[in-house]
Order: sequence, then C-alpha cells, then structure tokens
Amino acid sequence: MYSVDVNCDMGESFCTYRKGQDEKVIQFVSSVNIACGFHAGDPAVMKKTVRIAAKAGVEIGAHPGFDDLPGFGRRKIDLTPEEVYDLVVYQIGALQGFCVAEGVTLHHVKAHGALYNMAARDEAIADAIAEAVAAVDDSLLLYGLAGSCLIKAGEKYSLKTVSEAFSDRTYQSDGSLTPRSNPQALIHDKQAAAEQVIRMVREQKVSSIQGKDVGISPETICIHGDGEKALEFAACIKEKLEKSDIKIRAAKKKA
Amino acid sequence: MYSVDVNCDMGESFCTYRKGQDEKVIQFVSSVNIACGFHAGDPAVMKKTVRIAAKAGVEIGAHPGFDDLPGFGRRKIDLTPEEVYDLVVYQIGALQGFCVAEGVTLHHVKAHGALYNMAARDEAIADAIAEAVAAVDDSLLLYGLAGSCLIKAGEKYSLKTVSEAFSDRTYQSDGSLTPRSNPQALIHDKQAAAEQVIRMVREQKVSSIQGKDVGISPETICIHGDGEKALEFAACIKEKLEKSDIKIRAAKKKA
Amino acid sequence: MYSVDVNCDMGESFCTYRKGQDEKVIQFVSSVNIACGFHAGDPAVMKKTVRIAAKAGVEIGAHPGFDDLPGFGRRKIDLTPEEVYDLVVYQIGALQGFCVAEGVTLHHVKAHGALYNMAARDEAIADAIAEAVAAVDDSLLLYGLAGSCLIKAGEKYSLKTVSEAFSDRTYQSDGSLTPRSNPQALIHDKQAAAEQVIRMVREQKVSSIQGKDVGISPETICIHGDGEKALEFAACIKEKLEKSDIKIRAAKKKA
Amino acid sequence: MYSVDVNCDMGESFCTYRKGQDEKVIQFVSSVNIACGFHAGDPAVMKKTVRIAAKAGVEIGAHPGFDDLPGFGRRKIDLTPEEVYDLVVYQIGALQGFCVAEGVTLHHVKAHGALYNMAARDEAIADAIAEAVAAVDDSLLLYGLAGSCLIKAGEKYSLKTVSEAFSDRTYQSDGSLTPRSNPQALIHDKQAAAEQVIRMVREQKVSSIQGKDVGISPETICIHGDGEKALEFAACIKEKLEKSDIKIRAAKKKA
Repeated sequence: MYSVDVNCDMGESFCTYRKGQDEKVIQFVSSVNIACGFHAGDPAVMKKTVRIAAKAGVEIGAHPGFDDLPGFGRRKIDLTPEEVYDLVVYQIGALQGFCVAEGVTLHHVKAHGALYNMAARDEAIADAIAEAVAAVDDSLLLYGLAGSCLIKAGEKYSLKTVSEAFSDRTYQSDGSLTPRSNPQALIHDKQAAAEQVIRMVREQKVSSIQGKDVGISPETICIHGDGEKALEFAACIKEKLEKSDIKIRAAKKKA
Repeated sequence: MYSVDVNCDMGESFCTYRKGQDEKVIQFVSSVNIACGFHAGDPAVMKKTVRIAAKAGVEIGAHPGFDDLPGFGRRKIDLTPEEVYDLVVYQIGALQGFCVAEGVTLHHVKAHGALYNMAARDEAIADAIAEAVAAVDDSLLLYGLAGSCLIKAGEKYSLKTVSEAFSDRTYQSDGSLTPRSNPQALIHDKQAAAEQVIRMVREQKVSSIQGKDVGISPETICIHGDGEKALEFAACIKEKLEKSDIKIRAAKKKA
Repeated sequence: MYSVDVNCDMGESFCTYRKGQDEKVIQFVSSVNIACGFHAGDPAVMKKTVRIAAKAGVEIGAHPGFDDLPGFGRRKIDLTPEEVYDLVVYQIGALQGFCVAEGVTLHHVKAHGALYNMAARDEAIADAIAEAVAAVDDSLLLYGLAGSCLIKAGEKYSLKTVSEAFSDRTYQSDGSLTPRSNPQALIHDKQAAAEQVIRMVREQKVSSIQGKDVGISPETICIHGDGEKALEFAACIKEKLEKSDIKIRAAKKKA
Repeated sequence: MYSVDVNCDMGESFCTYRKGQDEKVIQFVSSVNIACGFHAGDPAVMKKTVRIAAKAGVEIGAHPGFDDLPGFGRRKIDLTPEEVYDLVVYQIGALQGFCVAEGVTLHHVKAHGALYNMAARDEAIADAIAEAVAAVDDSLLLYGLAGSCLIKAGEKYSLKTVSEAFSDRTYQSDGSLTPRSNPQALIHDKQAAAEQVIRMVREQKVSSIQGKDVGISPETICIHGDGEKALEFAACIKEKLEKSDIKIRAAKKKA
C-alpha cells in the first residue's frame, strides 16, 4: 500500500480582499500551508484557517514568505540569510500563537514563493530557513523541493524533511521544474496531472518534457487552491489516487 | 523590605530607522516590553532586543499594538474585540518565536499606546486582550493600568496581573492619569519623578495635581527609554529606589 | 429636463487582490472615484482605471482615504486636520500624475469611507480637505454628503461643490443617513432604489424611514460597484432614470 | 567660470522616525531629491521638505524608489518595466501635489537606491523611468549616473538630462563606481572628496582606484546628508568649490 501527503497553500486572503476557496479545497488535502501575514494573510484569516484545518483534521504548516504583500511574495528580494532567519522565526511564532490558542499542534513549515525558490538553490538561504525552524521547534517537519538545497539543509539541522513534487508542473530531464516562463511549464489537463502524481508515487519516476524518465521520490504533492479549475484538479487527484490504492495522509512528526 | 518592578518599552526601531537607547536603559529596569512589528519593531530588532534583555537578565514581555506604523500605535482605531484578540495572539506568538529560539521564557504582555488606553476603559477590548493572553499561554503575566478594566479582565481569565503606575505622569484625584493634553500631565523633574515612585511603593499613595492623596498600589513602574533625558531619569529612579531600600525586581510567574 | 450625475467608487483592487467589476459598471455611471493607493488601489490599478474611465468618456475623481489598507479606509482614525490635509494633497497629486500621463483632466475629489464620514460632521476635517483640494487645483469639484460640513467647507474655499445622495441607503427625518448599524439602513430592492433616486431628482424629496418627507437636492447619486447585485442595481437605476427623462451626466468644472 | 549642481537626498524621515539633517544640509546644496513615501518619507515630511527647499531657494526633485520601506529602497526587487513606470508616475505626481500647493515648480527626477542602480545598467528599466517622467511633465530634468543607460533613455524621450558624479565614492578605470562591497569604495577624507569634485568639474577627469585618469563630465554632484560627518563634508565641498571659482547652481529647466 502506497501513501503520500497532498498539501495546499491556504489563508491567502487579506483583510477585505478574498483569495482562494479554502473551505472547499480542504476536503481534498492532508496538509495545508497557512500564510503568516507577510506575503498574504492577516491575524483574522490565520485564526479562521487554523480552525478550518483543525475541523477537517488536516495537518497545519506555517507558510512564511517575504514581507511583500504587493508582490504576493513572488518577487525575489535580496535578503541576507540572517534576515531570512528572522522572518521565518517571526512567522512560525505568529502561527503557533493561533495553533496553541485553538488547541492544535503545528506540523510543518513550507517556505512561500520566491523564498521557496531561493531556498531550493541557495545554500545559505536554505540553511537560514532550516536553522530558524530548528530554533523554534525541532519537531516541525520541513517541506522542500525534492532534491533541493533546502532538503539538505533540513538534514543538516536534524529536522525531519518532506520532499515535495508538483502535480501540475512539468519537469526537466535534470529533475528541476520547468520554469514558468516556458509555455510547457504547466499541466493543464487534470487527468494528466493525476497520472503524473500516481507514477511519481508508485514508480518514483516522472517523464521530463524532453521525454526522459527522471527519478523522483515525493513525500508530499503540492496542489493549488486558487484559480478556476483548482477544485476540479484537487477532486480528480484525490479520486485517482484513492482508486490507485494510494492513501492520502500527512507525514508523522518525530516522536 | 519593599520591592517593585521597573519596566520600559524597547525594540521600537524599525528597519533602517533607529529609536530609543535600549542597550543603555536596560541596566536600570527589571522588565521590558518589546514591540512586535505592528506599531514598531521588526523581526531583526525583536531578536536583537530579546538578546539584550536575556544578557541583562531582565524579564521580557510582548508589547502588542495596533497595525499602525505611521501612527506608532498611538492613534485610536476602532477595532472590534475579535480583531483585538487576533492581533494580540499574533504578536505574542511572534515574540515567543524569538524567545524560544534564544532559550528564554516570555514573562508578560503589556498592550501599547492607544490599545493600552482603550483596554483601560473599554471592557470588551480589555476582555479580548486577556482572553488572547490566556489562550496563548495562561502563565503569562498581564500588565495593565492600576485599577483599570484590563486588570479586572485579567482576573476574570485567571491571569496573574501586574498593576502599573507611571513615574513621570501626574494623576487626577480620581486616580486616573492626567491627560497628555493638560500642560501638567508630565513630571519634568527627575527627583520629583523618583519621589513619586517611592511614595507610591512605600505609602501606596500619590498626590494628585489637585493636591489630594490618592491610593495606588503599583506592582510595576513604567519609565520611558526615549527622549533626551530618559537615561538620566532612569538612573535617578533606580538610585533613589535603592537608597530607599526598595528592590527593583520583576514579579514572578505563576508556578 | 432633469439631469443628475451618477458616481461609483473604482480602482479598489490591490496588487494580486481583485475587487469590484469596474469594466462592467463603467457603462452605468457618469463619474468615478478612483482609490489612490492608501485604503485601496495601487499604481498599476490607478493607471488601468484611469484608462477605463477615459475610454468610456466618464469623469474621473480622486478618492483619497486613510492610510489603512487592512481596514479598507473604513475605520475611524484620529488624524489631525493637518494630517488629513497632507494625505489629501498627496493622493490627489498621485492620481493627477496618471491623468496627465493619459491625457485626461481630473474632475473632482470625493473622500472615502471613514474620512468621508468624518468630513460630513467635523468642521476642522472638512476644512482640511477643502483646503487641500483648493491648494492642489481649485478647479476641481468637491463631492460631499448633501448638507454636510464638507459642502460648507468647499464653499468657504470657493470650490464648486457637488451634493451627494445615495441610491441604496435610507434616510432619517433629519436628513441624515440611517447608520449602517440599523437593520433598515440599506435598500435591498433595486426598483425602490431607482424610485428613491427619481424622487430625489424630480421632487427634491426623500421619504425617511420614519415616513416623513425630507428635502434633499442631490447633484450626484452614489451607486456601489461591489457586491453580487451591484450590476443589476446600476443597470436598473440607469434605465429608470432615462425612462423618467433624467439625463445622467457629470457636473461641469468651472470655466 | 565653472559651475556645477550639488544635490542631496532629503525628506527621508518616516512618521515618528527621524533621519537626516535636512534643515542644516540645505545651505550647502543647489538641488534636493525628496523621497515620495515609498522607500522613505510620508505626506507630512514631503510638505515640510518642500517648504525647507522653497525657503532656501533650492531646486526640488522627486526621488522615487521601490515600495520597500523595510529595505529603504536599497534592495533589488524584480519589477517589470511597466511596474517601474507606474511607480514613477505615482511618486512624481504625489510630490507635484505638494509643489503646486506650496507654489513652487518641480525641477527634476532622480531615482533612488536599487532603482537608480538598475536604471544605470538595465535599458528597459531606464526606458520605463524616462517614459514616466516624459509622460507626467517633459520639462522635468532627469538626473542619472554619468554615462549610464538612464541618461541615454532620457535623451531618447527628449528629456533634458543631468549627469551625476559622486563626491565620496571612488571610480573604476572603466568609469563605473567602485562597488560598496570593495573596502576602497568610499572616500573618507573630506578634503580628498572636495578635490575629486573640483578635478571632475575643471578637468573633466577622475583618478580611478587603479590610478588611471578617467573622463567624466558631471553636471551634478551627489553629496550625502545622513551620517555623522555629512555636514562637515558638505561644508568642505561647498567652501572648496567656491574657492576654486566653481559656482554651485542647479541646471535650468527647458524654456
């Protein structure tokens, strides 16, 4: 029997501005990454999203990002590793406040947007994130791109890591994600997305856009909760995984 | 033998902007209230200030305020009690992140500026703050204006409360602070400020500007770390208290 | 032949966050109030909204509000009149930048949210707004609640004023708006809203919720572009006004 | 008789946070670049700084920067050229509001920090800035690093450009500024700084840190108003220039 975690970003509304369909997507995932008020989210949204996840019995992660609401955390900003450490500690702490208040346990940390991408490639940034997570709570799981600097940094700081793959992104023959600037970057067909996930989980392989099989061992699959077709994709992936005897469940924290 | 806590706001710099003289004032106080990035402060400043306090062996409090950097948290904003609850949970959590990372224990919570003033008079706001503190960590002490709604709310939520008085503010015959709009609101002479504190502690009395003795039982004295004469005032108060056999020490947390 | 202006707030999206249906509502109005990046809007949205209005031949107004994105400018903040003056000058100037760049002329200024409400009742705030408008460009029209302090202040500064009434708000017998806290504050039926407008324009009267006729002489009618039924309301009001031989057109600027 | 403009950044305080010594530095310069509320400054500071400059008879420029108060506009953020255009139009407009209100004429635009550096090297960003300036007011002078992309972009948009050199920065043999990461980047001796300026103006040459003479034709010299020695440097440069019969005066706008 196979199993894999399915995660989704949530809590990305901001004050009077709505984003995402958290109440609906929650039924299709086993863990969520909640924005912490820097690139998106606000205290009220964080509390509400923690409650949604707690009620659904889904694991909760902190989703720290750059202090860049205008850019939704997707614009690269040249922070020093120490600045990254600081903002990760801050944001995990803030979300932990709501977890404690709601009687649930924070499960993991997944960096957002440009910070996620920088952490995949830049050792110093990856180290800063892992060090911050370990400093706040070393039982937290660290989500990161499979094979990335961040996964290595997590191991260095003795964190339990969770390697991530994407359902709706294509891969290069070297195992990296096809950049979004490439027209083939995204998978627009939900069946194809579901099949990519199933093959990753069962065979630990993904076909690159160059047609080559690449090894990949994902422990969590990222799906997107925003956009018109998000719900359809999420539902299809869940259905297909279950039909293929793949259980959707989050990784366990260290005992 | 008498004792009293002396507290001061700290960590009010913001990114490239400096405010206060934290490294110097720290020697004159037994507890500090650290801004949490909403009305002042930022993650780097929070970490640095926690380190300054930890090194000096001074107790650390969260100092949550309105999300109003332009107004430094001093402008009244009509938030609902639930919004106040949310921002207090968030800010305590964020500072706790740094405390845990630095291996120190968060000691108390003191609301800032307009939020402090609203909590003194408005029961629903006071309740929201006390509920938030209790929800995040019910061993935290709650600082509040002596005799205010906030002290009562803290008791309602079974928090240990710490009643605050001011060294450099004058009082009305009803025990309230003279509003800042009144030219007599501030005590400009450091000796007079120190003497007011000593009398409060030893005799549990303060002379109002109308010349009447008013009962007051402060457990903590607020001094200011900003402004030209802050250091002189702080040094004078410490010296005078010690000469009067009043020990400066923070209240203990509940066992 | 009667005529009246119909205005609507626009440009309230913020970066990746969408709000309103500006491209659709524009066909039903003769003037728009564009958010200036403080309570809502951003430079890109401002440019785009100026272009939408210019293309539709609709008059453009600046819609300055408090520097309070989290509260969408609807929370009362205690600013001094001088602070209000400064933020109005700033925001008008910023929007004028886009108007000049797009080759169109700024037509009017209408304060937003809590600032609008404060300006209706508080003479010093009203004066500060009128003074700011006059200082930047005294040919700009000043929109304000009919009978309010702001209309008087505009006259004091020799501005041409435009008295506003609301299509979907009810009135008290003293001519004031029914506060939103009152369950009868809003008109939920589009026909009733249209009829209220027609009566205001033709008879210069409105029925209060107490059932009394109140005199009102609106030169502009505010409709809302947000919410599910906004388009239906806007279309209905336009259709009904035109069937009643009331021309929808904006006031002319001073020669 | 020689002449050159001496410019300085001003208006970099933010709300309750102070930065710079504008009232004192103003006497040593012929033009100032006023922050527009994005990387620094706020409406009240802008008004005050316009007044200081107007009173001193010094020319006023807009100093647009990234929307990055935490980073003081010094962190590179990957904006698209269109986003740069938008933020430049917005910020020029906002400052023009205060200039009109105070009865003075805006003189020039100088980009700040990371935006200045990007505009020196990146043609698309340089073009976006020049296009924005031309769109708002094509009589505005465009300040830019001597020999940079921005100067060329200004010419393309038929703007009058003003080439800038630095008093306290060293140069490379290719005419570029020594990067701040190099320990020799800054000139710490005020006499040496003044002499570098004089030689630039009289001989149109500067000695590189490699010891080679490099051609340079500055029309404006940047001095810094912040830091301990800023006033001393400013005074020394002014005195030395005047003793060398170099008149300090701003470039004239196009007729």
